[in-house]
Amino acid sequence: MTQEKKNIAIIGSGLVGSLLAIYLKRYGHKITVFDRRPDIRNIEFSGRSINLAMSNRGWNALKTVGIEEEIKKIAIPLDKRAMHVIGKEQYFQKYSKDGEAIWSISRGVLNKRMIDLAENNGVDFRFEEKVWDIDLPRAVVYTGESEKGEWKEYPFDLVFGCDGAFSRVRHKMQRRSRFDYSQDFIDVGYKELTIPANADGTHKLDKHSFHIWPRGKFMFIAMPNLDGSFTCTLFMPFEGEVSFESLQTKKDAVRFFNTYFPNVKDEIENLTEDFFKNPTSAMVTMKCYPWTYWDKVALVGDSAHAVVPFYGQGMNAGFEDIYVLDQLIQEFGDDWERIFTTYQEKRKPNADAIAELSYRNFIEMSSKTADANFLLQKKIEKHFSTKHPEKWIPAYSRVTFSNRPYAEALAEGDAQEEIMKEVMKISNIAENWDSLEVENLMLKLLSGS
Amino acid sequence: MTQEKKNIAIIGSGLVGSLLAIYLKRYGHKITVFDRRPDIRNIEFSGRSINLAMSNRGWNALKTVGIEEEIKKIAIPLDKRAMHVIGKEQYFQKYSKDGEAIWSISRGVLNKRMIDLAENNGVDFRFEEKVWDIDLPRAVVYTGESEKGEWKEYPFDLVFGCDGAFSRVRHKMQRRSRFDYSQDFIDVGYKELTIPANADGTHKLDKHSFHIWPRGKFMFIAMPNLDGSFTCTLFMPFEGEVSFESLQTKKDAVRFFNTYFPNVKDEIENLTEDFFKNPTSAMVTMKCYPWTYWDKVALVGDSAHAVVPFYGQGMNAGFEDIYVLDQLIQEFGDDWERIFTTYQEKRKPNADAIAELSYRNFIEMSSKTADANFLLQKKIEKHFSTKHPEKWIPAYSRVTFSNRPYAEALAEGDAQEEIMKEVMKISNIAENWDSLEVENLMLKLLSGS
Repeated sequence: MTQEKKNIAIIGSGLVGSLLAIYLKRYGHKITVFDRRPDIRNIEFSGRSINLAMSNRGWNALKTVGIEEEIKKIAIPLDKRAMHVIGKEQYFQKYSKDGEAIWSISRGVLNKRMIDLAENNGVDFRFEEKVWDIDLPRAVVYTGESEKGEWKEYPFDLVFGCDGAFSRVRHKMQRRSRFDYSQDFIDVGYKELTIPANADGTHKLDKHSFHIWPRGKFMFIAMPNLDGSFTCTLFMPFEGEVSFESLQTKKDAVRFFNTYFPNVKDEIENLTEDFFKNPTSAMVTMKCYPWTYWDKVALVGDSAHAVVPFYGQGMNAGFEDIYVLDQLIQEFGDDWERIFTTYQEKRKPNADAIAELSYRNFIEMSSKTADANFLLQKKIEKHFSTKHPEKWIPAYSRVTFSNRPYAEALAEGDAQEEIMKEVMKISNIAENWDSLEVENLMLKLLSGS
Repeated sequence: MTQEKKNIAIIGSGLVGSLLAIYLKRYGHKITVFDRRPDIRNIEFSGRSINLAMSNRGWNALKTVGIEEEIKKIAIPLDKRAMHVIGKEQYFQKYSKDGEAIWSISRGVLNKRMIDLAENNGVDFRFEEKVWDIDLPRAVVYTGESEKGEWKEYPFDLVFGCDGAFSRVRHKMQRRSRFDYSQDFIDVGYKELTIPANADGTHKLDKHSFHIWPRGKFMFIAMPNLDGSFTCTLFMPFEGEVSFESLQTKKDAVRFFNTYFPNVKDEIENLTEDFFKNPTSAMVTMKCYPWTYWDKVALVGDSAHAVVPFYGQGMNAGFEDIYVLDQLIQEFGDDWERIFTTYQEKRKPNADAIAELSYRNFIEMSSKTADANFLLQKKIEKHFSTKHPEKWIPAYSRVTFSNRPYAEALAEGDAQEEIMKEVMKISNIAENWDSLEVENLMLKLLSGS
């Protein structure tokens, strides 16, 4: 933990930027966090964010700097999914037999708390100061009112780009030769809506559930907040028969909710107003490489690897970046070139894996939930996993409730998929799905014989 | 051909920009071409470009505006490959029985001629005028000495981005939501070298051949110029055992050429000087979508789809973009929104296909040329194709000597690959490769039975 004291800039005061500030401050570095936006603590937080689901990797990163318990106070554990299927009563799916949970937390509330914690530890925040350019080899940061106006120049020893999917720092790196980069938007957008609390402050739906209304090409979800409200998100194609584009008037919106979400529509606050007032946002998978420049600049979190939100792992992956980076700081001390090189080599395959897993979950939800074969396969997997929990850990559990590498979860998931391909070839599988024959075949395939 | 006269900006005076200017000027539009570089006609053209191979698609686009014959005067037909394999005499591979050829042409010479032709037709060129920004919905172009200095503002009706793989126009589109983009660099770089003419102006190697020195992970190629010289390119990994990085001194370079290119090293001009003076350049596959913005802005050529050069199709694909765009102008007249929408929908799958084909050729050349199975497969394909030329058109011929869509060439190539997978499973295929059994199996698989 003895490190040469450095003058460090962090670009972005979001979740990853503020947690990284807390981490690095422990070593006695001088930390300045720049953000082009105003201090989130002074403004009414305005939506545009799916509620966050903190899971193992996130908690693990918070524990290292001793703020896990502090943050748990502002989070609600969800130990199950509550499924709202048309023509059926609400039913529940436990995440595990042991009561493992994901934790619902508001991005705004969490971010405010983390900035407080960083500031209390001596981190200097410079809000509403826009970074326009970075001299990568010299780690100089240029800020100013406008891109074409006067700029201030700040020399640093190290610069961290925690400025999200549309990172300015990465943008600067991207113009270099041999920098791989991709951004891929999906054709589905999202819109936030709210279910308010009951008059007595209690929740209108089960508080310890992640609520899902799956409807094939689109879906509605709700996650609880501390104040009794739920933050809801409608995911739906931008264009097409049932799409954001197809809902142009309040009447369209009312008809849409009456048709597809009759059991929840009356709970949503100002439905028709909010539907047209709140923005429809896009979702992107963003990949790049390298993530670092010499021993000067590194990207952390969404700036290095933005994923679509369908695995609930965006923030968790960013926090895990910080955890891994910190392990390397402890291992390599002042050798920042080695820290950065090892960091990107270790994290890149895992970032690619969670991007792939998140994208597959999107495809699964939007096209496979109505596929009888797919549902049968899932039923068989669940049946087997219940009987042999140590032999068949679902990918979701590996990703959400373990700290094993994402790349491992992806590889294990692919291996399971290969086995299920064979299983699904069994004749009369729809009738024999819970037979000893199927179970034995799976055991045999698992043992690799 | 009756079109409302428009005020059109073309960004970039390269091959695609200048040919597009010639095309659009035919309709009587006012055309202004901006380029940040000086007029190429006034400067010594400085390398950094693999010699170009004009093939069918390129010629087809030039023919439409009547300049095919004019340009053929500055091109040299190559009807075969000349293979320089270590331990073997030079041998030739004809491109086709009918003498079909690709045409070697110097990028600099061609570009100068095309700018002359455009200017003679009344196109206005503004060299050394740097475009910094574009207001996409208003088609306004901003130019100036520096990004932070004073800018001039030019209003246009239409703007075409022909500014290459690192396009400023695309860069502006890229910051929009729902714009898909990727840039992928390969780990191989290239360096240009020269074989000068003999004292009497004749060529030192066969003039009508594309010369190749394949060496597995790296290779050397040479294409003839009109003045008797050859433009040569060394392709080699950036890093690794045999790589640009590993050649640090003149002694290293001499030893490298002595070892791998003994039969050509003495012909190369100023080998050791040029090797370190000339830059090592990177190669990128760049994809994006959409290619157009409303009825205002369109990307054409490398700005929309840059490919690695291993199929010799970069320029040809850009010229074909223009040809297709022009067909749509003739079909849809003044409906630029429809022209642009149809253009991108038609061209995108073909651009993706030639990107894939080009990348596969790179993989093939760098890793498969030493694979005995691969070489056997190619031998079988060639044997069959010679016997049944109408039944087995090699992908190279479809791409190079036809105007059928690239996507079709890719699909047909994949279908052939599937057939060859079956063929290669035949026992003793190495002995039976030219047997009737193999031929009949291929005929059977081709007929789909």
